[in-house]
Amino acid sequence: MNTDIPKISDFPTGEENTAYAQYFTGKSWLAPLASNKNLNVPLANVTFEPGCRNNWHSHTGGQLLIVVGGEGLYQERGKSAIHLKAGDVVEIAPNVEHWHGATATSWFSHLATNGSPATNQNMWLEPVNDEDYQNGNRQIQE
Amino acid sequence: MNTDIPKISDFPTGEENTAYAQYFTGKSWLAPLASNKNLNVPLANVTFEPGCRNNWHSHTGGQLLIVVGGEGLYQERGKSAIHLKAGDVVEIAPNVEHWHGATATSWFSHLATNGSPATNQNMWLEPVNDEDYQNGNRQIQE
Repeated sequence: MNTDIPKISDFPTGEENTAYAQYFTGKSWLAPLASNKNLNVPLANVTFEPGCRNNWHSHTGGQLLIVVGGEGLYQERGKSAIHLKAGDVVEIAPNVEHWHGATATSWFSHLATNGSPATNQNMWLEPVNDEDYQNGNRQIQE
Repeated sequence: MNTDIPKISDFPTGEENTAYAQYFTGKSWLAPLASNKNLNVPLANVTFEPGCRNNWHSHTGGQLLIVVGGEGLYQERGKSAIHLKAGDVVEIAPNVEHWHGATATSWFSHLATNGSPATNQNMWLEPVNDEDYQNGNRQIQE
């Protein structure tokens, strides 16, 4: 693990998230936390460096985010960004386009699981451009 | 909320868990954290007072526990108890008989979700007797 990553939660940080790097702006880390195929509840901790966010995307089964450390942003298409901090839970309905990530100044970690994991598919779209990202950060400061 | 309950995590404590009290030894509190039927990922925070544990039980869909505060115990039938603390995740396979709860001296909170939530059923069995509970507490102190 990169020793430059601050400890912002009790959960493992894992390894640099190279598999999904093509869908992220900035660096992220991924720690798988579940593996039991019979249980079939995927769970991972995703950690974002300050300024890091994922592309606009959606999930056919929906997604549930459990914020465990730092401060972040969540935005659905056409809505204002929401400020996230440890203890917040976000339910993302199936096929709703959205993005999530750290604020410009804070590290951020959330656990993530999906609805209908046996059939869920992720649809990755365009990056969140700097203007939209900065607008999201401004909204939470007002 | 009972102001006697210490804040041991960033997640809501909710209300006293009267609905399931018949399956618990000691007091617990329950905070539902998800409600979106289209997503269909149940999630709740369960808080146990020191000494509180649930009965032996199993889930047809299995269960996933995400420890967010305090110290607790998890035991599967025929195995030694495991010591749990914030950041631990427990995957409980379908139909495996088990119990979980606080240690004798600490409050304890975990989030819980189920596998196959659309069809999951809980099977409640006998209480964890004092001898087995004390044995579990002794195991983690050795």
